[in-house]
Amino acid sequence: MNLSGVFAPIPTPFDGDGAVDAGKLRTALARFVARPLTGFIILGSNGEAVLLDEDESDRVIGVAREAVPKGRPFIVGTGRESTQAAVRAARRAAELGADAVLVRTPGFFKTQMTSDAFVRHYTTVADASPVPVLLYNFTALTGVNLLPATVSRLAIHPNIIGIKESGGDVAQIADLVSGTPEDFNVLAGTTSTFYAALSVGCVGGILALGCVVPEACIRLYELVKEGRHADARVLQQQLVPLTRLLGPTYGVPGLKAALALIGYDLGVPRAPLAPVPDAAIASLRAALAPFEEIHVQSAAR
Amino acid sequence: MNLSGVFAPIPTPFDGDGAVDAGKLRTALARFVARPLTGFIILGSNGEAVLLDEDESDRVIGVAREAVPKGRPFIVGTGRESTQAAVRAARRAAELGADAVLVRTPGFFKTQMTSDAFVRHYTTVADASPVPVLLYNFTALTGVNLLPATVSRLAIHPNIIGIKESGGDVAQIADLVSGTPEDFNVLAGTTSTFYAALSVGCVGGILALGCVVPEACIRLYELVKEGRHADARVLQQQLVPLTRLLGPTYGVPGLKAALALIGYDLGVPRAPLAPVPDAAIASLRAALAPFEEIHVQSAAR
Amino acid sequence: MNLSGVFAPIPTPFDGDGAVDAGKLRTALARFVARPLTGFIILGSNGEAVLLDEDESDRVIGVAREAVPKGRPFIVGTGRESTQAAVRAARRAAELGADAVLVRTPGFFKTQMTSDAFVRHYTTVADASPVPVLLYNFTALTGVNLLPATVSRLAIHPNIIGIKESGGDVAQIADLVSGTPEDFNVLAGTTSTFYAALSVGCVGGILALGCVVPEACIRLYELVKEGRHADARVLQQQLVPLTRLLGPTYGVPGLKAALALIGYDLGVPRAPLAPVPDAAIASLRAALAPFEEIHVQSAAR
Amino acid sequence: MNLSGVFAPIPTPFDGDGAVDAGKLRTALARFVARPLTGFIILGSNGEAVLLDEDESDRVIGVAREAVPKGRPFIVGTGRESTQAAVRAARRAAELGADAVLVRTPGFFKTQMTSDAFVRHYTTVADASPVPVLLYNFTALTGVNLLPATVSRLAIHPNIIGIKESGGDVAQIADLVSGTPEDFNVLAGTTSTFYAALSVGCVGGILALGCVVPEACIRLYELVKEGRHADARVLQQQLVPLTRLLGPTYGVPGLKAALALIGYDLGVPRAPLAPVPDAAIASLRAALAPFEEIHVQSAAR
Repeated sequence: MNLSGVFAPIPTPFDGDGAVDAGKLRTALARFVARPLTGFIILGSNGEAVLLDEDESDRVIGVAREAVPKGRPFIVGTGRESTQAAVRAARRAAELGADAVLVRTPGFFKTQMTSDAFVRHYTTVADASPVPVLLYNFTALTGVNLLPATVSRLAIHPNIIGIKESGGDVAQIADLVSGTPEDFNVLAGTTSTFYAALSVGCVGGILALGCVVPEACIRLYELVKEGRHADARVLQQQLVPLTRLLGPTYGVPGLKAALALIGYDLGVPRAPLAPVPDAAIASLRAALAPFEEIHVQSAAR
Repeated sequence: MNLSGVFAPIPTPFDGDGAVDAGKLRTALARFVARPLTGFIILGSNGEAVLLDEDESDRVIGVAREAVPKGRPFIVGTGRESTQAAVRAARRAAELGADAVLVRTPGFFKTQMTSDAFVRHYTTVADASPVPVLLYNFTALTGVNLLPATVSRLAIHPNIIGIKESGGDVAQIADLVSGTPEDFNVLAGTTSTFYAALSVGCVGGILALGCVVPEACIRLYELVKEGRHADARVLQQQLVPLTRLLGPTYGVPGLKAALALIGYDLGVPRAPLAPVPDAAIASLRAALAPFEEIHVQSAAR
Repeated sequence: MNLSGVFAPIPTPFDGDGAVDAGKLRTALARFVARPLTGFIILGSNGEAVLLDEDESDRVIGVAREAVPKGRPFIVGTGRESTQAAVRAARRAAELGADAVLVRTPGFFKTQMTSDAFVRHYTTVADASPVPVLLYNFTALTGVNLLPATVSRLAIHPNIIGIKESGGDVAQIADLVSGTPEDFNVLAGTTSTFYAALSVGCVGGILALGCVVPEACIRLYELVKEGRHADARVLQQQLVPLTRLLGPTYGVPGLKAALALIGYDLGVPRAPLAPVPDAAIASLRAALAPFEEIHVQSAAR
Repeated sequence: MNLSGVFAPIPTPFDGDGAVDAGKLRTALARFVARPLTGFIILGSNGEAVLLDEDESDRVIGVAREAVPKGRPFIVGTGRESTQAAVRAARRAAELGADAVLVRTPGFFKTQMTSDAFVRHYTTVADASPVPVLLYNFTALTGVNLLPATVSRLAIHPNIIGIKESGGDVAQIADLVSGTPEDFNVLAGTTSTFYAALSVGCVGGILALGCVVPEACIRLYELVKEGRHADARVLQQQLVPLTRLLGPTYGVPGLKAALALIGYDLGVPRAPLAPVPDAAIASLRAALAPFEEIHVQSAAR
């Protein structure tokens, strides 16, 4: 499975009572699939997966599977703290139609999460999963780091096909690329260093900005592919203010608010998350402005 | 509810297939309740709660409730990432007989976990919980810090009766004591600074070492109460090597291994945790040796 | 040399042109020595020692030596990044009348500052110094940590008589006490955890607050000595707001501003340090208010 | 002044008694200037500048100035903790023939090193310096971070011509490039992310590896300039093992040991630094092996 390109991590809509809103998810996905994105992730960090129970997760997978056309990778986040729960989640996702699963590192018992522990965890999950497995390292949220040396040990497993690395340490990303086979997919997880990550060999990215300004993200990807580095750097700089707002500053609530500004209704975040403060709306609007033409164009399609 | 004294956070036993072993839990609790401990916590961090699903959690509560005599506080860990899941967990624990619930901070979406977010989360949980709520701050594992100023805002809620603070920052603990009402229970969560924590006003502790060397922990607590600080300091020093092994070094697997060495069978940890390496056993045995007499004595009771 | 009690780290006064103001230093010291402090430190962190050249340092030592009566320990900060510069500074300080030298860890080449490197550095300095040496660990400023295990190795040197530990990690302080001989002086370097530090065996402290509210610091020291822990804890809490302002918030400029408020003129800080903003004065005044009576009393002496 | 290309930060040789060895410096520089490097830095971090006194510094500048031909930038590190000492050092360096000065951030009083403090410090130095000023940010050693927003404020000063950024955060480097004028020289300070730094717009680098494998560093620089990114990435990967050994692992002693292996005698490091352990030699030799042909070639010139 070749995962080159830009993927969008779809947020999970909740209604005013805090319940999953399947209708909003269907409507939003109908529009997301009209964009030239390579594929789609559900139940990732931006999907507020840790705030859902297992039944809700299954329902989200079912609804999304119907909305995403076959032929475009449909990837489901199935990370769990316990290995057996992660195995079960991968199996259920596969049964419900996932093309691959994205498995975040367990991270609660930080001092015990050695390289060996990660190898055991992922090997068990990959042995059991009916569909291919993507590793997922997000140190800023989990507090643990799936190091390149560990990934090298895992990359030889026939059912482990790549990694989403959400950190901005480009040297670590370069090590991932050089320490894994040619066909192992190293995907960037943050737009803030997307250009640099592509430059050191990432095949693409799973980017919150892929939901909001997909054309810009894809153009950046293509500029690097064409060797137009100077243009790519300019575009990267234009994306920085927006990526800051959706990442460290306002997080998932910021992503939902940005999507609302361009006409996508993904509802509210689930508590303890809360909608962004009013002041954030103006910042988001300003950061989106340079990309307006794109939105108008794509809305007109 | 006065929570002065030493509490033991009971590990959850698993069998060779990774299933909860109710029989071992019953047997172990029968022995734990024979020790002069103030009360008991189940499904805390040392109870591997994050590795259990909801059905398993309910079952552990049911089994433990039968084993712990009324009159000794029986506290259940019910922290969840989503507020509504935390509410449901607290209600179910209360229904199953918990005297109070211990609610760890949500921590996945770190940058969004502001003081206001914590106040909303805990207020919703405390409003809904049929039994009193203990806050629970464990920054080393969650990556977020429930600051004394936030605790001061929460301590006035009639259904929030205290906090377990697992960090070793004694200045922060002192701030918790001075910023909350007289009857708000500030409990230490680590033996490594237990003496210092008691010195600055903690009413007691929830201590992994309370499972292993309860008499020593209780003696330390009493020495401080009696103002015998010099003796207390000596005892604190004696406890340090053991607390290091059970905390940062070997974690929950270390606790289970130490308990095995003194005749308690709590089974194996659940994956991705793994039993401690053989080399650890010797270290644990050496760290336990100074307390042997206590064990022999208590075994003889 | 027994260093029990409270020591004041004297700031270095500068005039409007940024030159050392010897007159102000003399005047201030005349008043400091009238307070019931055990002894005095010059050219420590609070003395802006790193902003002085060697000639200025010598001049400050000379002026201060005249002002401090024999019989009360007069300690000079002589830490330098290179071992040979640290040796020379210790020798010059001894020649100029220092009773002991306080030698901050070198810390520029952080990854090279191993336990062995510290042992080599301090052994060379202590071998060469005509007066006793105090180790000095201030991790927050240097970025390196002189661990208790290293201090244990150094504490057996006949010319190393103690340590100033400026960190607030009370467990580390307790390890220092238990890992060194009975007559090795472990001194706290921050008032924020002074009570806890005394509780675990510190013989005293070198405290910025010792300049500003010496009577309160000394009373806290004596309360612990008398075993009156409850009273000591109350007093510790009263000192917290002030210690926060003089430490992490406003640093040395805050100390100079606080001293100005109680009638001591220590001039301005040297650039790149700058006087505190106006807003800070009100905060400092409020934090000093509870100790006003003391100042009035001592002013009346 | 255009600083495009690769610069070598020359180590300072010491003899067996710990004295500056001017002879070895002359001999080494005669060979360094024969390599196709753009220019030379003395008295930087790798020059152990913090371990030298002012007289020694002046002597090193004098010796080096004679050895470096006019026309190739000769830059002197003149960072000091106090602003006035930094001014004096810049003036002396200019008098002794420096083409520009490299001024590391002061960093001792960390909490006081605000953006305003940095602007005051550097503006004073740049106003007074007879030669252009390069900012220098090395957070891993100083513990403070000269943020892109602060650099933007300083980059408009006519006498501030660039920055050496030694951190590996490529997003921060990209912000430096985009937040400063076209002719402001952003130079990378570490080979570990040199390719990524060039990709986001650095004009070159001041690299310890520029002393050891200058041809490889220069080739990497040229590959990026020619848009041959795939080749550049391969070369970057080849440089990683060596950069790890000379940076975080063995530091300046590692650099001196690596230079000894290729026939440059820079003497021993000054205490508290110590020569690398014997085990390091084998690692360094192995990391140098892939570049051997280059050395042989350049030795043959």
